[in-house]
Amino acid sequence: MKSYVQRMERAVSQAQEAGLAGLLVTPGPDLVYFTGYRPTAITERLTVLVLTAGSDPYLVVPVLERPDAEEADGVAAVTLIGWKDGDDPYETLSGLVDPAGRYALSDSAWAMHLLALQLAAPHVRCTSMTSTLPMLRAVKDDDEVARLAAAGAAADAAYEQIAGVRFAGRSEADVGADLAGLLREHGHSQVDFTVVGSGPNGANPHHEMGERVIREGDMVVLDFGGLKDGYGSDTTRTVHVGPPTAFEQEVFDVVRAAQQAGFEAVRPGVSCEDIDRAARDLITDAGYGDFFIHRVGHGIGLTTHEPPYLVRGEKRPLVPGMCFSIEPGIYLPGRFGVRIEDIVTVTGTAGRRLNNTDHGLRIVA
Amino acid sequence: MKSYVQRMERAVSQAQEAGLAGLLVTPGPDLVYFTGYRPTAITERLTVLVLTAGSDPYLVVPVLERPDAEEADGVAAVTLIGWKDGDDPYETLSGLVDPAGRYALSDSAWAMHLLALQLAAPHVRCTSMTSTLPMLRAVKDDDEVARLAAAGAAADAAYEQIAGVRFAGRSEADVGADLAGLLREHGHSQVDFTVVGSGPNGANPHHEMGERVIREGDMVVLDFGGLKDGYGSDTTRTVHVGPPTAFEQEVFDVVRAAQQAGFEAVRPGVSCEDIDRAARDLITDAGYGDFFIHRVGHGIGLTTHEPPYLVRGEKRPLVPGMCFSIEPGIYLPGRFGVRIEDIVTVTGTAGRRLNNTDHGLRIVA
Repeated sequence: MKSYVQRMERAVSQAQEAGLAGLLVTPGPDLVYFTGYRPTAITERLTVLVLTAGSDPYLVVPVLERPDAEEADGVAAVTLIGWKDGDDPYETLSGLVDPAGRYALSDSAWAMHLLALQLAAPHVRCTSMTSTLPMLRAVKDDDEVARLAAAGAAADAAYEQIAGVRFAGRSEADVGADLAGLLREHGHSQVDFTVVGSGPNGANPHHEMGERVIREGDMVVLDFGGLKDGYGSDTTRTVHVGPPTAFEQEVFDVVRAAQQAGFEAVRPGVSCEDIDRAARDLITDAGYGDFFIHRVGHGIGLTTHEPPYLVRGEKRPLVPGMCFSIEPGIYLPGRFGVRIEDIVTVTGTAGRRLNNTDHGLRIVA
Repeated sequence: MKSYVQRMERAVSQAQEAGLAGLLVTPGPDLVYFTGYRPTAITERLTVLVLTAGSDPYLVVPVLERPDAEEADGVAAVTLIGWKDGDDPYETLSGLVDPAGRYALSDSAWAMHLLALQLAAPHVRCTSMTSTLPMLRAVKDDDEVARLAAAGAAADAAYEQIAGVRFAGRSEADVGADLAGLLREHGHSQVDFTVVGSGPNGANPHHEMGERVIREGDMVVLDFGGLKDGYGSDTTRTVHVGPPTAFEQEVFDVVRAAQQAGFEAVRPGVSCEDIDRAARDLITDAGYGDFFIHRVGHGIGLTTHEPPYLVRGEKRPLVPGMCFSIEPGIYLPGRFGVRIEDIVTVTGTAGRRLNNTDHGLRIVA
């Protein structure tokens, strides 16, 4: 309860510093962060938490869902305003905001709600939460880091087991199903992705898995994650079925060195884009720059993609408590892909990996 | 493929009739409807299908997700425009729209995307898809009706089995878990709700299920549904543990007759509100009008709640191919509830039920 109140207070003061009248928080990770409330479904019925300086927090909620909302820990610190089918919840909301104020609105709020608010309160201006208050949830407290570390350790345990199963002769989907089962066995409540990208499929960084039968000689990208105790895991290892060719090993070694270079660049005060650059320069210098086609990393917490983004142009500094992926890759169309990804947290002086399985090219059967 | 093209063409002409320049379609049921494309995750990276008169359809998509998008059948008829991390996809999007045009935007599009578009193209006006083009997905084609029928048949099979399990002495949550398992066994990929409202809990139409232990003599409302092959099921039957009292049977018979009256009123050209009235009049005449506290039905398709809504004030006519629930109920606070719900499709001349289990008050153990 206390931490929910502190989070709401900190958010309001961050909003004031950013010249905002307050925050409009809709169901999803922001609302979980501030209240612990996670509605069964996110729907066309408006639910919104209004956080403003000098006022109590209000939660506008459909009366049908009010009993569920009241069960959430952080909602005890909030005044609930129920609305019934037939009422206009946007009128209610516009009565709670400064009619000429600027508000940060949760990124994933439904456009239909924003459009209705813009009609009901035409002089209220909204900006997206992440662009205006990007660091709102980016610095994790000790409890959050501990949960991310536990999710990472569970993912590591799943990887150690999957590396022992048979790959050759089985479909990507079969291996992916094994991997999902292992993540659940190790305490994940939700599995969000189990990429099994074998041979040429590994060259598509977002290939999930398919009916392709894995063969001796395949490079296989395994990228997997989900939620454990509400916090995310996201790990990639690349394995090889039988011994690799010298060329495959060379490409792999470039990615491994790039991941290490990114990790070693982590310390408080270094900018986000510097981590991207540290990893990318190494790949570019090795001649594979055109084949590393994504940013080097993203924050992780209540969601698996959130600020800070480690990408060219992101000049904000790293701060102790930030948690993010470092995941360079090389993708050779029609041939194979390699990616290595750890979650890393920023300590007072450096980075600390929350994934700790070996980075070498594991040979699988 | 052909049906996707036809859907896009029909949408553009509906948009023109509504005075819109076009449609902006983001991941979710609208995008599945037009292209069959269902991204693995809906994220901060913009994906949007732009449908405008006199122009080919364009799909703006992150390059990382382009290969997945290309696998969707309907995407073959669309020009893809990939964007990379670091590019500004909103600039790309604003180059594809009429700078002073009005567009219908998918209801669940993320607010951050809408806000960024409003910055990049300040004279483009957006309205929500459902409020502007409510009938966009309301008339189902033969393939869609067949899928809804298959989802309904699966729900029927699950009901026949759940009616055979023990109710007395078990919690609502236990029976709900059985029901969810049965829906999955019968081919549902996703279970969205399994209401088990026993005794007084049945009088709250949005009660899901809880720890209440079901007792001999309880009326029990079972309302369950989810997705099978991408299309929804949503069925309610009310059962009784042991023989009912004469009063319980009387209330039940009123609801059963109201559901039948609603069904018999279905034919092309009749207004949506007339179906509500046909069922409601019967309940009102029996003296229970104050205890039927919701609309009589809602459309169903790629989602379980969508237009047409069968509610007072909805004067649009029924059209062959529409599919919706007819679900009158009577809720006696502190005592019990009764609801009977079938999915019904409009044929050339009448209604056809997609749920076909018996409507009588089933006695369970």
